[in-house]
Amino acid sequence: MGLKIIEARHINIDNKIENEYFENIVDTSSVWIESRTGIKSRFFTDKRGYDMAIETVKLFKNSLRNLDLIIVASFTTRMRAPSVAASINEFIGGDKNILCFDLNMACSGFMGAVILAEKYLEIGGKALIIATEKISDFLNFKDRSSCVLFGDGAAGVLVEKNNKLWEHIVGTFPGIEALNVNENSLIEMDGKKVYRFASVNVTIAIEDLLKKCRIMPQEIDYYLLHQANIRIINQVLEKLKIKSNKTMTNIDRYGNTSAASIPILISENFHKFNEKDKIVIAGFGAGLSIAAVLMEW
Amino acid sequence: MGLKIIEARHINIDNKIENEYFENIVDTSSVWIESRTGIKSRFFTDKRGYDMAIETVKLFKNSLRNLDLIIVASFTTRMRAPSVAASINEFIGGDKNILCFDLNMACSGFMGAVILAEKYLEIGGKALIIATEKISDFLNFKDRSSCVLFGDGAAGVLVEKNNKLWEHIVGTFPGIEALNVNENSLIEMDGKKVYRFASVNVTIAIEDLLKKCRIMPQEIDYYLLHQANIRIINQVLEKLKIKSNKTMTNIDRYGNTSAASIPILISENFHKFNEKDKIVIAGFGAGLSIAAVLMEW
Repeated sequence: MGLKIIEARHINIDNKIENEYFENIVDTSSVWIESRTGIKSRFFTDKRGYDMAIETVKLFKNSLRNLDLIIVASFTTRMRAPSVAASINEFIGGDKNILCFDLNMACSGFMGAVILAEKYLEIGGKALIIATEKISDFLNFKDRSSCVLFGDGAAGVLVEKNNKLWEHIVGTFPGIEALNVNENSLIEMDGKKVYRFASVNVTIAIEDLLKKCRIMPQEIDYYLLHQANIRIINQVLEKLKIKSNKTMTNIDRYGNTSAASIPILISENFHKFNEKDKIVIAGFGAGLSIAAVLMEW
Repeated sequence: MGLKIIEARHINIDNKIENEYFENIVDTSSVWIESRTGIKSRFFTDKRGYDMAIETVKLFKNSLRNLDLIIVASFTTRMRAPSVAASINEFIGGDKNILCFDLNMACSGFMGAVILAEKYLEIGGKALIIATEKISDFLNFKDRSSCVLFGDGAAGVLVEKNNKLWEHIVGTFPGIEALNVNENSLIEMDGKKVYRFASVNVTIAIEDLLKKCRIMPQEIDYYLLHQANIRIINQVLEKLKIKSNKTMTNIDRYGNTSAASIPILISENFHKFNEKDKIVIAGFGAGLSIAAVLMEW
Protein backbone atom coordinates (compact mmCIF):
# COMPACT_ATOMS: atom_id res chain seq x y z
CA MET A 1 0.00 0.00 0.00
CA GLY A 2 1.19 3.47 -0.73
CA LEU A 3 0.34 6.94 -1.93
CA LYS A 4 0.19 8.30 -5.45
CA ILE A 5 1.05 11.98 -5.67
CA ILE A 6 -1.64 13.18 -8.06
CA GLU A 7 -0.70 16.84 -8.10
CA ALA A 8 1.81 19.15 -6.41
CA ARG A 9 1.77 22.94 -6.22
CA HIS A 10 3.84 25.69 -4.64
CA ILE A 11 3.34 29.42 -4.37
CA ASN A 12 5.64 32.11 -5.69
CA ILE A 13 6.77 34.85 -3.35
CA ASP A 14 7.89 38.15 -4.88
CA ASN A 15 10.25 39.36 -2.22
CA LYS A 16 13.54 37.65 -3.03
CA ILE A 17 16.29 38.22 -0.48
CA GLU A 18 19.86 37.82 -1.80
CA ASN A 19 22.75 36.90 0.48
CA GLU A 20 24.05 40.48 0.15
CA TYR A 21 21.09 41.63 2.26
CA PHE A 22 22.67 40.03 5.32
CA GLU A 23 26.03 41.73 4.84
CA ASN A 24 24.49 44.94 6.21
CA ILE A 25 22.83 43.22 9.15
CA VAL A 26 25.34 40.75 10.57
CA ASP A 27 29.07 40.10 10.21
CA THR A 28 28.91 37.79 7.19
CA SER A 29 29.56 37.71 3.48
CA SER A 30 27.58 36.53 0.51
CA VAL A 31 30.40 34.19 -0.50
CA TRP A 32 30.66 32.68 2.98
CA ILE A 33 26.91 31.94 3.13
CA GLU A 34 26.88 30.30 -0.27
CA SER A 35 30.02 28.24 0.30
CA ARG A 36 28.85 26.95 3.68
CA THR A 37 25.18 26.36 2.91
CA GLY A 38 24.58 26.39 -0.85
CA ILE A 39 22.08 29.21 -0.38
CA LYS A 40 22.16 32.17 -2.79
CA SER A 41 18.76 33.64 -2.00
CA ARG A 42 15.50 32.99 -0.17
CA PHE A 43 12.06 34.62 -0.05
CA PHE A 44 10.55 36.60 2.83
CA THR A 45 6.84 37.38 2.75
CA ASP A 46 4.55 39.78 4.60
CA LYS A 47 1.64 37.36 4.27
CA ARG A 48 0.37 35.20 7.10
CA GLY A 49 0.96 31.45 7.04
CA TYR A 50 -2.80 30.99 6.73
CA ASP A 51 -2.95 33.18 3.61
CA MET A 52 0.00 31.34 2.08
CA ALA A 53 -1.84 28.07 2.70
CA ILE A 54 -5.01 29.36 1.01
CA GLU A 55 -2.94 30.67 -1.91
CA THR A 56 -1.47 27.18 -2.30
CA VAL A 57 -4.90 25.58 -2.18
CA LYS A 58 -6.14 27.88 -4.96
CA LEU A 59 -3.44 26.51 -7.27
CA PHE A 60 -5.09 23.09 -7.21
CA LYS A 61 -8.06 24.59 -9.02
CA ASN A 62 -10.84 22.07 -9.50
CA SER A 63 -9.18 18.90 -8.33
CA LEU A 64 -10.03 19.17 -4.64
CA ARG A 65 -13.16 17.04 -4.62
CA ASN A 66 -14.08 14.16 -2.32
CA LEU A 67 -11.18 14.59 0.06
CA ASP A 68 -11.02 12.33 3.12
CA LEU A 69 -8.24 14.18 4.90
CA ILE A 70 -6.55 17.58 5.04
CA ILE A 71 -3.34 18.00 7.00
CA VAL A 72 -1.48 21.29 7.30
CA ALA A 73 2.15 20.95 8.38
CA SER A 74 3.70 24.04 9.94
CA PHE A 75 5.75 25.14 12.92
CA THR A 76 5.18 28.83 12.25
CA THR A 77 1.44 29.28 11.75
CA ARG A 78 -0.23 31.63 14.22
CA MET A 79 -3.74 30.28 13.69
CA ARG A 80 -4.85 28.40 16.80
CA ALA A 81 -8.52 27.64 16.23
CA PRO A 82 -9.96 26.41 14.04
CA SER A 83 -7.05 24.52 12.52
CA VAL A 84 -5.73 25.88 9.22
CA ALA A 85 -6.77 22.50 7.76
CA ALA A 86 -10.42 22.93 8.83
CA SER A 87 -10.37 26.50 7.48
CA ILE A 88 -9.13 25.18 4.14
CA ASN A 89 -12.03 22.73 4.04
CA GLU A 90 -14.45 25.60 4.67
CA PHE A 91 -12.70 27.68 1.96
CA ILE A 92 -13.02 24.96 -0.68
CA GLY A 93 -16.56 24.04 0.38
CA GLY A 94 -15.36 20.53 1.07
CA ASP A 95 -17.20 17.48 2.27
CA LYS A 96 -18.22 17.18 5.91
CA ASN A 97 -17.07 13.58 6.44
CA ILE A 98 -13.41 14.55 6.50
CA LEU A 99 -10.63 14.70 9.08
CA CYS A 100 -8.78 18.03 9.22
CA PHE A 101 -5.91 18.85 11.53
CA ASP A 102 -2.67 20.81 11.78
CA LEU A 103 0.56 19.02 12.52
CA ASN A 104 3.81 20.35 13.97
CA MET A 105 6.89 18.22 13.53
CA ALA A 106 9.16 21.11 12.51
CA CYS A 107 11.11 20.45 9.27
CA SER A 108 9.92 16.82 9.21
CA GLY A 109 6.27 17.88 9.32
CA PHE A 110 5.38 17.38 5.68
CA MET A 111 6.81 13.86 5.63
CA GLY A 112 5.18 13.08 8.97
CA ALA A 113 1.87 14.12 7.40
CA VAL A 114 2.54 11.96 4.33
CA ILE A 115 3.23 8.91 6.52
CA LEU A 116 0.07 9.49 8.55
CA ALA A 117 -2.03 10.04 5.41
CA GLU A 118 -0.90 6.69 4.01
CA LYS A 119 -1.89 4.98 7.26
CA TYR A 120 -5.21 6.83 7.53
CA LEU A 121 -6.57 6.52 3.99
CA GLU A 122 -8.43 3.53 2.64
CA ILE A 123 -7.78 2.38 -0.94
CA GLY A 124 -8.97 5.14 -3.26
CA GLY A 125 -9.07 7.69 -0.46
CA LYS A 126 -7.68 11.17 -1.12
CA ALA A 127 -5.79 13.64 1.04
CA LEU A 128 -4.57 17.19 0.66
CA ILE A 129 -1.34 17.91 2.51
CA ILE A 130 -0.26 21.54 2.71
CA ALA A 131 2.91 22.90 4.27
CA THR A 132 3.08 26.60 5.04
CA GLU A 133 6.01 28.25 6.75
CA LYS A 134 6.56 31.92 7.50
CA ILE A 135 9.92 31.44 9.14
CA SER A 136 11.05 35.06 8.67
CA ASP A 137 8.93 35.92 11.75
CA PHE A 138 11.13 33.73 13.93
CA LEU A 139 14.63 34.63 12.77
CA ASN A 140 17.18 36.17 15.10
CA PHE A 141 18.74 38.84 12.90
CA LYS A 142 21.56 39.22 15.40
CA ASP A 143 22.67 35.61 14.94
CA ARG A 144 24.66 35.32 11.72
CA SER A 145 24.80 31.54 11.94
CA SER A 146 21.05 30.99 11.76
CA CYS A 147 19.29 34.02 10.22
CA VAL A 148 20.81 33.40 6.79
CA LEU A 149 19.57 29.82 6.54
CA PHE A 150 15.80 30.05 6.35
CA GLY A 151 13.17 31.29 3.94
CA ASP A 152 9.39 31.45 3.70
CA GLY A 153 7.41 29.09 1.52
CA ALA A 154 4.24 27.11 1.03
CA ALA A 155 3.41 24.11 -1.08
CA GLY A 156 1.22 21.06 -1.07
CA VAL A 157 0.34 17.76 -2.62
CA LEU A 158 -2.86 15.95 -3.44
CA VAL A 159 -2.41 12.24 -2.77
CA GLU A 160 -4.45 9.12 -3.29
CA LYS A 161 -4.02 5.71 -1.70
CA ASN A 162 -2.76 3.06 -4.11
CA ASN A 163 -1.17 -0.36 -3.75
CA LYS A 164 2.32 0.29 -5.07
CA LEU A 165 5.61 -0.11 -3.23
CA TRP A 166 5.67 1.94 -0.04
CA GLU A 167 7.74 1.84 3.11
CA HIS A 168 8.41 4.44 5.76
CA ILE A 169 10.81 5.09 8.59
CA VAL A 170 10.69 7.57 11.46
CA GLY A 171 13.13 8.69 14.12
CA THR A 172 13.26 11.00 17.11
CA PHE A 173 16.65 11.76 18.66
CA PRO A 174 17.62 13.85 21.69
CA GLY A 175 18.70 17.37 20.77
CA ILE A 176 16.35 20.13 21.92
CA GLU A 177 19.41 22.36 22.34
CA ALA A 178 20.61 21.61 18.79
CA LEU A 179 17.64 23.31 17.12
CA ASN A 180 14.67 25.06 18.68
CA VAL A 181 12.51 28.14 18.80
CA ASN A 182 13.40 29.77 22.12
CA GLU A 183 11.25 31.60 24.70
CA ASN A 184 11.68 34.82 22.70
CA SER A 185 10.20 33.08 19.64
CA LEU A 186 13.56 33.07 17.85
CA ILE A 187 15.27 30.15 16.16
CA GLU A 188 18.36 28.89 17.99
CA MET A 189 20.64 26.42 16.32
CA ASP A 190 23.88 24.61 16.96
CA GLY A 191 24.91 24.08 13.35
CA LYS A 192 27.55 21.45 14.11
CA LYS A 193 25.16 19.28 16.10
CA VAL A 194 22.48 19.50 13.41
CA TYR A 195 25.04 18.72 10.72
CA ARG A 196 26.31 15.68 12.61
CA PHE A 197 22.79 14.41 13.31
CA ALA A 198 21.66 14.87 9.74
CA SER A 199 24.69 13.46 7.97
CA VAL A 200 24.91 10.41 10.24
CA ASN A 201 21.33 9.59 11.24
CA VAL A 202 19.55 10.50 8.01
CA THR A 203 22.00 8.27 6.12
CA ILE A 204 21.38 5.39 8.54
CA ALA A 205 17.62 5.92 8.35
CA ILE A 206 17.68 5.77 4.54
CA GLU A 207 19.85 2.63 4.64
CA ASP A 208 17.41 1.01 7.08
CA LEU A 209 14.46 2.05 4.94
CA LEU A 210 16.02 0.45 1.86
CA LYS A 211 16.96 -2.71 3.78
CA LYS A 212 13.32 -3.12 4.84
CA CYS A 213 12.49 -3.48 1.13
CA ARG A 214 15.72 -5.26 0.15
CA ILE A 215 16.52 -2.52 -2.32
CA MET A 216 20.06 -1.26 -2.90
CA PRO A 217 20.77 2.49 -2.77
CA GLN A 218 21.77 2.40 -6.45
CA GLU A 219 18.36 1.05 -7.47
CA ILE A 220 16.68 4.27 -6.37
CA ASP A 221 15.93 6.75 -9.16
CA TYR A 222 15.67 9.89 -7.05
CA TYR A 223 16.58 11.01 -3.56
CA LEU A 224 14.59 14.02 -2.41
CA LEU A 225 16.08 15.33 0.81
CA HIS A 226 14.94 18.17 3.03
CA GLN A 227 16.69 21.32 1.84
CA ALA A 228 18.52 22.38 4.99
CA ASN A 229 22.10 22.69 3.75
CA ILE A 230 23.73 21.55 0.50
CA ARG A 231 26.60 20.07 2.49
CA ILE A 232 24.21 17.78 4.40
CA ILE A 233 22.65 16.64 1.12
CA ASN A 234 26.08 16.00 -0.43
CA GLN A 235 27.28 14.19 2.65
CA VAL A 236 24.27 11.84 2.78
CA LEU A 237 24.56 11.04 -0.95
CA GLU A 238 28.31 10.46 -0.63
CA LYS A 239 27.83 8.02 2.24
CA LEU A 240 25.18 6.19 0.22
CA LYS A 241 27.56 6.23 -2.79
CA ILE A 242 24.95 7.98 -4.92
CA LYS A 243 25.80 10.42 -7.71
CA SER A 244 24.42 13.94 -7.40
CA ASN A 245 22.38 13.61 -10.61
CA LYS A 246 20.00 11.39 -8.62
CA THR A 247 18.96 14.21 -6.36
CA MET A 248 17.14 17.48 -6.88
CA THR A 249 17.84 20.66 -4.98
CA ASN A 250 16.49 24.18 -4.74
CA ILE A 251 18.14 25.33 -1.54
CA ASP A 252 20.13 27.83 -3.64
CA ARG A 253 16.89 29.73 -4.37
CA TYR A 254 14.74 29.06 -1.29
CA GLY A 255 17.02 28.39 1.67
CA ASN A 256 15.48 26.13 4.29
CA THR A 257 11.69 26.45 4.18
CA SER A 258 11.18 23.76 6.85
CA ALA A 259 8.07 21.64 6.22
CA ALA A 260 7.52 23.38 2.86
CA SER A 261 10.90 22.38 1.46
CA ILE A 262 10.01 18.91 0.18
CA PRO A 263 6.62 19.74 -1.37
CA ILE A 264 8.22 22.73 -3.15
CA LEU A 265 10.88 20.33 -4.50
CA ILE A 266 8.23 17.84 -5.62
CA SER A 267 6.14 20.58 -7.23
CA GLU A 268 9.06 22.07 -9.15
CA ASN A 269 10.19 18.68 -10.47
CA PHE A 270 6.81 17.01 -10.88
CA HIS A 271 7.08 16.58 -14.67
CA LYS A 272 10.42 14.74 -14.33
CA PHE A 273 9.04 11.75 -12.42
CA ASN A 274 8.01 8.70 -14.43
CA GLU A 275 5.82 5.76 -13.59
CA LYS A 276 7.73 3.05 -11.71
CA ASP A 277 10.47 5.45 -10.59
CA LYS A 278 11.64 4.46 -7.12
CA ILE A 279 11.97 7.56 -4.98
CA VAL A 280 13.27 8.12 -1.47
CA ILE A 281 11.95 11.25 0.21
CA ALA A 282 13.41 12.24 3.58
CA GLY A 283 12.46 15.01 5.95
CA PHE A 284 14.53 15.82 9.04
CA GLY A 285 14.94 18.65 11.50
CA ALA A 286 14.11 19.87 14.98
CA GLY A 287 13.11 17.13 17.37
CA LEU A 288 15.56 15.98 16.35
CA SER A 289 13.33 14.17 13.94
CA ILE A 290 13.41 12.09 10.77
CA ALA A 291 10.47 10.99 8.61
CA ALA A 292 11.17 9.29 5.30
CA VAL A 293 9.43 7.13 2.73
CA LEU A 294 10.42 4.91 -0.14
CA MET A 295 7.78 5.00 -2.86
CA GLU A 296 7.16 3.91 -6.40
CA TRP A 297 5.86 6.73 -8.60
CA MET B 1 -8.63 -3.58 15.39
CA GLY B 2 -8.71 -1.05 18.17
CA LEU B 3 -6.91 0.52 21.07
CA LYS B 4 -6.72 -0.59 24.68
CA ILE B 5 -6.34 2.30 27.12
CA ILE B 6 -3.68 0.88 29.44
CA GLU B 7 -3.38 3.88 31.73
CA ALA B 8 -4.80 7.41 32.01
CA ARG B 9 -3.49 10.31 34.08
CA HIS B 10 -4.34 13.95 34.67
CA ILE B 11 -2.63 16.71 36.58
CA ASN B 12 -4.04 18.67 39.48
CA ILE B 13 -3.95 22.45 39.35
CA ASP B 14 -4.09 24.36 42.64
CA ASN B 15 -5.60 27.59 41.48
CA LYS B 16 -9.36 26.93 41.50
CA ILE B 17 -11.48 29.75 40.09
CA GLU B 18 -15.08 29.84 41.30
CA ASN B 19 -17.84 31.45 39.26
CA GLU B 20 -17.93 34.32 41.77
CA TYR B 21 -14.55 35.43 40.43
CA PHE B 22 -16.23 36.59 37.22
CA GLU B 23 -18.88 38.67 38.99
CA ASN B 24 -16.22 41.34 39.60
CA ILE B 25 -14.90 41.25 36.03
CA VAL B 26 -17.91 41.08 33.73
CA ASP B 27 -21.65 41.59 34.05
CA THR B 28 -22.60 38.07 35.09
CA SER B 29 -23.65 36.04 38.09
CA SER B 30 -22.51 32.79 39.56
CA VAL B 31 -26.03 31.36 39.30
CA TRP B 32 -26.38 32.39 35.66
CA ILE B 33 -23.08 30.72 34.69
CA GLU B 34 -23.98 27.49 36.45
CA SER B 35 -27.52 27.32 35.12
CA ARG B 36 -26.48 27.98 31.52
CA THR B 37 -23.33 25.87 31.38
CA GLY B 38 -23.17 23.50 34.34
CA ILE B 39 -19.84 25.03 35.34
CA LYS B 40 -19.21 25.84 39.03
CA SER B 41 -15.45 26.27 38.90
CA ARG B 42 -12.38 25.79 36.69
CA PHE B 43 -8.63 25.95 37.15
CA PHE B 44 -6.24 28.62 35.84
CA THR B 45 -2.53 27.93 35.95
CA ASP B 46 0.62 30.04 35.63
CA LYS B 47 2.53 27.11 34.14
CA ARG B 48 3.33 26.75 30.47
CA GLY B 49 1.53 24.14 28.38
CA TYR B 50 4.87 22.37 27.93
CA ASP B 51 5.39 22.11 31.70
CA MET B 52 1.85 20.81 32.17
CA ALA B 53 2.58 18.15 29.55
CA ILE B 54 5.79 17.08 31.29
CA GLU B 55 3.95 17.02 34.65
CA THR B 56 1.37 14.70 33.09
CA VAL B 57 4.08 12.45 31.66
CA LYS B 58 5.69 12.12 35.10
CA LEU B 59 2.45 10.62 36.46
CA PHE B 60 2.89 7.60 34.21
CA LYS B 61 5.98 6.66 36.21
CA ASN B 62 7.72 3.59 34.79
CA SER B 63 5.22 2.49 32.19
CA LEU B 64 6.52 4.57 29.29
CA ARG B 65 8.78 1.98 27.66
CA ASN B 66 8.96 0.92 24.04
CA LEU B 67 6.64 3.57 22.70
CA ASP B 68 6.08 3.78 18.94
CA LEU B 69 4.27 7.09 18.91
CA ILE B 70 3.82 10.23 20.99
CA ILE B 71 1.16 12.76 20.01
CA VAL B 72 0.52 15.98 21.91
CA ALA B 73 -2.88 17.55 21.25
CA SER B 74 -3.15 21.26 22.00
CA PHE B 75 -4.38 24.50 20.47
CA THR B 76 -2.70 26.64 23.13
CA THR B 77 0.89 25.45 23.38
CA ARG B 78 3.50 28.09 22.59
CA MET B 79 6.29 25.65 21.84
CA ARG B 80 7.06 25.71 18.12
CA ALA B 81 10.19 23.59 17.72
CA PRO B 82 10.90 20.94 18.58
CA SER B 83 7.39 19.62 19.01
CA VAL B 84 6.22 19.10 22.60
CA ALA B 85 5.94 15.42 21.67
CA ALA B 86 9.62 15.16 20.67
CA SER B 87 10.59 17.02 23.85
CA ILE B 88 8.63 14.49 25.90
CA ASN B 89 10.52 11.67 24.21
CA GLU B 90 13.81 13.36 25.12
CA PHE B 91 12.56 13.89 28.70
CA ILE B 92 11.68 10.22 29.19
CA GLY B 93 14.82 9.01 27.40
CA GLY B 94 12.61 7.21 24.93
CA ASP B 95 13.48 5.06 21.96
CA LYS B 96 14.73 6.64 18.75
CA ASN B 97 12.53 4.67 16.35
CA ILE B 98 9.42 6.62 17.28
CA LEU B 99 7.14 9.15 15.62
CA CYS B 100 6.52 12.31 17.66
CA PHE B 101 4.34 15.22 16.60
CA ASP B 102 1.98 17.87 17.92
CA LEU B 103 -1.56 18.05 16.63
CA ASN B 104 -4.01 20.92 16.60
CA MET B 105 -7.65 20.12 16.03
CA ALA B 106 -8.95 22.39 18.81
CA CYS B 107 -11.35 20.64 21.24
CA SER B 108 -11.43 17.53 19.01
CA GLY B 109 -7.63 17.18 19.15
CA PHE B 110 -7.38 14.38 21.67
CA MET B 111 -9.88 12.21 19.80
CA GLY B 112 -8.22 13.07 16.48
CA ALA B 113 -4.96 11.82 17.98
CA VAL B 114 -6.63 8.65 19.24
CA ILE B 115 -8.04 7.89 15.78
CA LEU B 116 -4.66 8.49 14.14
CA ALA B 117 -2.85 6.36 16.74
CA GLU B 118 -5.16 3.42 16.02
CA LYS B 119 -4.43 3.75 12.32
CA TYR B 120 -0.68 4.19 12.80
CA LEU B 121 0.11 1.45 15.31
CA GLU B 122 0.73 -2.17 14.42
CA ILE B 123 -0.66 -4.91 16.69
CA GLY B 124 1.09 -4.62 20.04
CA GLY B 125 2.35 -1.12 19.30
CA LYS B 126 2.09 1.51 22.03
CA ALA B 127 1.37 5.22 21.95
CA LEU B 128 1.34 8.03 24.49
CA ILE B 129 -1.24 10.71 23.79
CA ILE B 130 -1.04 13.86 25.87
CA ALA B 131 -3.41 16.83 25.77
CA THR B 132 -2.26 20.07 27.36
CA GLU B 133 -4.30 23.27 27.29
CA LYS B 134 -3.51 26.60 28.89
CA ILE B 135 -6.64 28.30 27.67
CA SER B 136 -6.57 31.07 30.30
CA ASP B 137 -3.97 32.83 28.11
CA PHE B 138 -6.51 33.21 25.32
CA LEU B 139 -9.63 34.34 27.18
CA ASN B 140 -11.26 37.69 26.50
CA PHE B 141 -12.08 38.88 30.00
CA LYS B 142 -14.32 41.57 28.53
CA ASP B 143 -16.61 38.97 26.92
CA ARG B 144 -18.93 37.51 29.54
CA SER B 145 -20.28 34.90 27.17
CA SER B 146 -16.94 33.14 26.55
CA CYS B 147 -14.48 33.91 29.37
CA VAL B 148 -16.50 31.95 31.93
CA LEU B 149 -16.52 28.74 29.88
CA PHE B 150 -12.92 27.56 29.75
CA GLY B 151 -10.33 26.20 32.11
CA ASP B 152 -6.75 24.94 31.98
CA GLY B 153 -5.91 21.26 32.14
CA ALA B 154 -3.63 18.48 31.00
CA ALA B 155 -4.06 14.73 30.83
CA GLY B 156 -3.01 11.77 28.79
CA VAL B 157 -3.44 8.12 27.99
CA LEU B 158 -1.13 5.26 27.23
CA VAL B 159 -2.69 3.06 24.55
CA GLU B 160 -1.86 -0.22 22.91
CA LYS B 161 -3.19 -1.67 19.68
CA ASN B 162 -5.51 -4.63 20.19
CA ASN B 163 -8.09 -6.43 18.06
CA LYS B 164 -11.29 -5.57 19.89
CA LEU B 165 -14.29 -3.69 18.55
CA TRP B 166 -13.31 -0.30 17.22
CA GLU B 167 -14.96 2.15 14.87
CA HIS B 168 -14.45 5.85 14.34
CA ILE B 169 -16.17 8.78 12.71
CA VAL B 170 -14.93 12.27 11.86
CA GLY B 171 -16.56 15.45 10.67
CA THR B 172 -15.59 18.96 9.64
CA PHE B 173 -18.34 21.54 9.22
CA PRO B 174 -18.24 25.19 8.13
CA GLY B 175 -18.21 27.61 11.06
CA ILE B 176 -14.97 29.54 11.50
CA GLU B 177 -17.06 32.44 12.80
CA ALA B 178 -18.83 30.21 15.35
CA LEU B 179 -15.68 29.51 17.37
CA ASN B 180 -12.14 30.75 16.81
CA VAL B 181 -9.09 32.39 18.28
CA ASN B 182 -9.02 35.84 16.69
CA GLU B 183 -6.14 38.00 15.45
CA ASN B 184 -5.71 39.35 19.00
CA SER B 185 -5.23 35.79 20.27
CA LEU B 186 -8.57 35.82 22.06
CA ILE B 187 -11.31 33.23 21.88
CA GLU B 188 -14.44 34.39 20.03
CA MET B 189 -17.56 32.33 20.18
CA ASP B 190 -21.12 32.42 18.94
CA GLY B 191 -22.65 30.24 21.63
CA LYS B 192 -25.91 29.62 19.79
CA LYS B 193 -24.16 28.39 16.64
CA VAL B 194 -21.87 26.11 18.62
CA TYR B 195 -24.82 24.77 20.60
CA ARG B 196 -26.82 24.06 17.45
CA PHE B 197 -23.83 22.38 15.75
CA ALA B 198 -23.03 20.24 18.76
CA SER B 199 -26.53 19.17 19.68
CA VAL B 200 -27.47 18.31 16.10
CA ASN B 201 -24.28 17.12 14.42
CA VAL B 202 -22.68 15.31 17.34
CA THR B 203 -25.91 13.36 17.81
CA ILE B 204 -26.01 12.43 14.12
CA ALA B 205 -22.32 11.48 14.16
CA ILE B 206 -22.86 9.14 17.13
CA GLU B 207 -25.91 7.61 15.45
CA ASP B 208 -23.88 7.04 12.27
CA LEU B 209 -21.00 5.60 14.27
CA LEU B 210 -23.33 3.11 15.96
CA LYS B 211 -25.03 2.22 12.67
CA LYS B 212 -21.64 1.33 11.19
CA CYS B 213 -21.40 -1.40 13.85
CA ARG B 214 -25.12 -2.22 13.95
CA ILE B 215 -25.25 -1.38 17.63
CA MET B 216 -28.21 0.37 19.24
CA PRO B 217 -27.64 3.46 21.41
CA GLN B 218 -29.02 1.54 24.41
CA GLU B 219 -26.36 -1.16 24.05
CA ILE B 220 -23.61 1.31 24.88
CA ASP B 221 -22.40 1.25 28.49
CA TYR B 222 -20.89 4.74 28.62
CA TYR B 223 -21.01 7.91 26.59
CA LEU B 224 -18.02 10.16 27.21
CA LEU B 225 -18.63 13.51 25.56
CA HIS B 226 -16.38 16.55 25.33
CA GLN B 227 -17.13 18.74 28.32
CA ALA B 228 -18.15 21.99 26.63
CA ASN B 229 -21.52 22.66 28.20
CA ILE B 230 -23.80 20.44 30.31
CA ARG B 231 -26.75 21.45 28.17
CA ILE B 232 -25.06 20.10 25.04
CA ILE B 233 -24.33 16.82 26.82
CA ASN B 234 -27.92 16.55 28.08
CA GLN B 235 -29.30 17.42 24.66
CA VAL B 236 -27.23 14.77 22.85
CA LEU B 237 -28.19 12.10 25.40
CA GLU B 238 -31.85 13.07 25.23
CA LYS B 239 -31.88 12.80 21.42
CA LEU B 240 -30.23 9.38 21.68
CA LYS B 241 -32.77 8.43 24.38
CA ILE B 242 -29.98 7.61 26.82
CA LYS B 243 -30.27 8.06 30.58
CA SER B 244 -27.80 10.39 32.25
CA ASN B 245 -26.35 7.59 34.40
CA LYS B 246 -24.63 6.34 31.25
CA THR B 247 -22.48 9.42 30.98
CA MET B 248 -19.77 10.93 33.11
CA THR B 249 -19.16 14.63 33.54
CA ASN B 250 -16.71 16.91 35.25
CA ILE B 251 -17.55 20.19 33.56
CA ASP B 252 -18.83 21.46 36.93
CA ARG B 253 -15.25 21.37 38.28
CA TYR B 254 -13.12 21.98 35.17
CA GLY B 255 -15.12 23.98 32.66
CA ASN B 256 -14.15 23.35 29.06
CA THR B 257 -10.50 22.28 28.91
CA SER B 258 -10.60 21.68 25.14
CA ALA B 259 -8.45 18.73 24.04
CA ALA B 260 -7.73 17.87 27.70
CA SER B 261 -11.39 17.41 28.61
CA ILE B 262 -11.82 13.80 27.49
CA PRO B 263 -8.54 12.38 28.86
CA ILE B 264 -9.27 14.07 32.22
CA LEU B 265 -12.68 12.39 32.17
CA ILE B 266 -11.15 9.01 31.32
CA SER B 267 -8.47 9.41 33.98
CA GLU B 268 -10.95 10.34 36.72
CA ASN B 269 -13.25 7.43 35.92
CA PHE B 270 -10.66 4.84 34.88
CA HIS B 271 -11.50 2.40 37.69
CA LYS B 272 -15.18 2.32 36.70
CA PHE B 273 -14.67 0.78 33.28
CA ASN B 274 -14.91 -2.99 32.98
CA GLU B 275 -13.73 -5.40 30.34
CA LYS B 276 -16.19 -5.66 27.44
CA ASP B 277 -17.85 -2.35 28.27
CA LYS B 278 -18.89 -0.65 25.04
CA ILE B 279 -17.94 3.00 25.18
CA VAL B 280 -18.61 5.92 22.83
CA ILE B 281 -16.15 8.79 23.19
CA ALA B 282 -16.84 11.97 21.23
CA GLY B 283 -14.76 15.11 20.85
CA PHE B 284 -16.10 18.19 19.09
CA GLY B 285 -15.30 21.86 18.82
CA ALA B 286 -13.72 24.54 16.65
CA GLY B 287 -13.38 23.58 13.03
CA LEU B 288 -16.21 22.95 13.43
CA SER B 289 -14.96 19.47 14.06
CA ILE B 290 -16.07 16.10 15.38
CA ALA B 291 -13.93 13.06 16.13
CA ALA B 292 -15.50 10.08 17.87
CA VAL B 293 -14.86 6.40 18.46
CA LEU B 294 -16.84 3.38 19.56
CA MET B 295 -14.62 0.98 21.50
CA GLU B 296 -14.80 -2.10 23.63
CA TRP B 297 -12.89 -1.72 26.89
